[in-house]
Amino acid sequence: MNLILKNARIVSMSKGTEGYLPSQPMTVVISSGKIESISSHADVSIPDLNAQYPVIDCQNRVLTPGLIDCHTHLVFAGNRSNEFEMRLNGVPYQTIAKQGGGILSTVKATRNASESELIELALPRLEGLTRSGVTSVEVKSGYGLTLDDELKMLRAAKALEDHKRIKVSTTLLAAHALPPEYAGKPDKYIDYVCQEIIPAAAQENLADSVDVFCESIGFNLEQTEKVFCATKANGLAIKGHTEQLSNLGGSALAASYNALSVDHIEYLDSDGVNALANSNTVATLLPGAFYFLRETQLPPIQLLREKDIPMAIATDFNPGTSPFADLTLMMNMGCTLFGLTPEEVLRGVTCHAAKAIGHPQTRGRLEVGMEADISIWDIEHPADLSYQVGVPRLFKRIVNGVICHD
Amino acid sequence: MNLILKNARIVSMSKGTEGYLPSQPMTVVISSGKIESISSHADVSIPDLNAQYPVIDCQNRVLTPGLIDCHTHLVFAGNRSNEFEMRLNGVPYQTIAKQGGGILSTVKATRNASESELIELALPRLEGLTRSGVTSVEVKSGYGLTLDDELKMLRAAKALEDHKRIKVSTTLLAAHALPPEYAGKPDKYIDYVCQEIIPAAAQENLADSVDVFCESIGFNLEQTEKVFCATKANGLAIKGHTEQLSNLGGSALAASYNALSVDHIEYLDSDGVNALANSNTVATLLPGAFYFLRETQLPPIQLLREKDIPMAIATDFNPGTSPFADLTLMMNMGCTLFGLTPEEVLRGVTCHAAKAIGHPQTRGRLEVGMEADISIWDIEHPADLSYQVGVPRLFKRIVNGVICHD
Ligand SMILES: [Zn+2]
Ligand SMILES: [Zn+2]
Repeated sequence: MNLILKNARIVSMSKGTEGYLPSQPMTVVISSGKIESISSHADVSIPDLNAQYPVIDCQNRVLTPGLIDCHTHLVFAGNRSNEFEMRLNGVPYQTIAKQGGGILSTVKATRNASESELIELALPRLEGLTRSGVTSVEVKSGYGLTLDDELKMLRAAKALEDHKRIKVSTTLLAAHALPPEYAGKPDKYIDYVCQEIIPAAAQENLADSVDVFCESIGFNLEQTEKVFCATKANGLAIKGHTEQLSNLGGSALAASYNALSVDHIEYLDSDGVNALANSNTVATLLPGAFYFLRETQLPPIQLLREKDIPMAIATDFNPGTSPFADLTLMMNMGCTLFGLTPEEVLRGVTCHAAKAIGHPQTRGRLEVGMEADISIWDIEHPADLSYQVGVPRLFKRIVNGVICHD
Repeated sequence: MNLILKNARIVSMSKGTEGYLPSQPMTVVISSGKIESISSHADVSIPDLNAQYPVIDCQNRVLTPGLIDCHTHLVFAGNRSNEFEMRLNGVPYQTIAKQGGGILSTVKATRNASESELIELALPRLEGLTRSGVTSVEVKSGYGLTLDDELKMLRAAKALEDHKRIKVSTTLLAAHALPPEYAGKPDKYIDYVCQEIIPAAAQENLADSVDVFCESIGFNLEQTEKVFCATKANGLAIKGHTEQLSNLGGSALAASYNALSVDHIEYLDSDGVNALANSNTVATLLPGAFYFLRETQLPPIQLLREKDIPMAIATDFNPGTSPFADLTLMMNMGCTLFGLTPEEVLRGVTCHAAKAIGHPQTRGRLEVGMEADISIWDIEHPADLSYQVGVPRLFKRIVNGVICHD
């Protein structure tokens, strides 16, 4: 857990422009999984440390905080490429749904899968993310929709940490869709979520947060608020899928409950932005779903900027609307489709994403005392990360001070 | 060069629907770099071969023809992420150009680079492509714009074959932009291209094809035709960057010269499509540039379909308008942005791309007698290739019957 990184050009992501510009070559000392010191090259004289700490010569490579993917649905079974293909061949959505397509096909396959099968299926997706420099990932449930199946998904998500050096945050998303058993009885299902699933997930320490799909085709404001209340009562953090397809006011509601983040928000209006401005809630943008759904309504980027609301960027990896396991591709889409700057999207996958998963003080910046989660890149400038896609350029990931041999 | 592949589910890309659907598990025998036989599992009894040929058990994985990226600008020096960043920060294009940005910055850096520097810079980009299953790649010159520098680029492109198992087709694109030395004298430059650069490239066997950027900001129809004439006289194949930003008629001109392909073609009209229909020319679609430039004019997909014109898909990897080194990402964009089907985009990177680089009889299909260029995938169905992005799923590439240990 002790390590020295020499000749490291640091992109700290600390506040202000200098946090984005690569430093002169520095020496980083890591001890017990934390950043113990960052000092300019000339200053350093640590012969005694050199003897006992392994040293990596970064050869002037750029170091960023390990990237954080703060919104994924990485754990599920089944494959929906057939739906993708049917849709592109002009088969109407109704027909696909009748044939058992859509989210319920994923629910069915996920219910039928064992925990270890779910893990095995998630690992290649996770591999895509770690290849793109990710050291922390949030994973949601939401394809089980029964107590047992939701907890199974959360256990599988947590178990990913045993298979790969990665930090997993888990989010219970039982209120993702109405399970077929509760057709026509959404309030009954919400009661079940609030009275049984949330308390069990909290009890077993399986979820860090609870999320709701607050949407005309999901759950309404009243149902969403019930979930938020139960979440609060059980001491868990709150997240929301809000204002993705319409403006129901879910973001403002989430902000009033001190949510970690509101996610998607293409249809957020200025009232909603004002509600966020008066809160501590992060605005998480998901350009992969925007692209895949050929959405044309842009999230209110300029308003969010004016109010200085932290914007995170995530993959939203999921089989229905964002099958993209590359966080730097999402950074490119954030720039290309949303007009964000390379600095904004890099903050979106580091310091702001850290806030969106509830770790603003310990992750997402390269500063003394922070957890030593670092991505080392073969690039000249941090803008390269959002500009190019597909060119391998991750030299190494470091998680808790340990070098990953991916 | 001899090899047996067992339990291989073949996606042959032969004509007709069955060419797209994975076969039952088959046995493929490769000899002297070619496909010697493909036989159904039960039929095979090759004990004597088994003894002397190495055998790979594909375990029911899906085999496609090795993917072909038929349009790239992979060889260049310099980095234009700074321009990308300036643009997103609202710096006007004029200012960027005044500061030496745009294509001429790439020309300057490429002229200053040695052949070996160009190779070193291209290799990570090529690595991105091979990771996405590419076994043949076309590489254009066009950032040298002098005899020596264009030939240097072509030599660097050809030399990539010595560093990685890949087949490189080279295209002379001296008529890419007007070099500063010829400012105001485009016809003089075209004379230089026709009388000196094309003959030299042909003489030294450095180019398979010659390409022209036929556009209001490139070269006009008359200049383009001069280049095509010189190309024909020198016995090389013809390609065109045509109808990308406006409808000049370059595609029809290229078709009348029996071009291998016309590329971009967002602004191609029905007359242009008819010209293609009466030719042997492939329509190459480049969704990466469409996406990166936020173009809204779609290529005439439905007309191309109706006329049964083969459509290829390529990365157009280049620093100005398509910095994307992942051919499966382009397949996804072909589906998502252009509405192509998964079968169409797979044909676009196999059989139709083979035609676009002048190898329709020997590459791009898995049939007896074809070159043994094969990509083996951890997927269930070929639609998975265009549906998901970023999830690693390439098991192995085979080039000329040799397994690549990428
Ligand atoms: Zn989501
Ligand atoms: Zn091009």
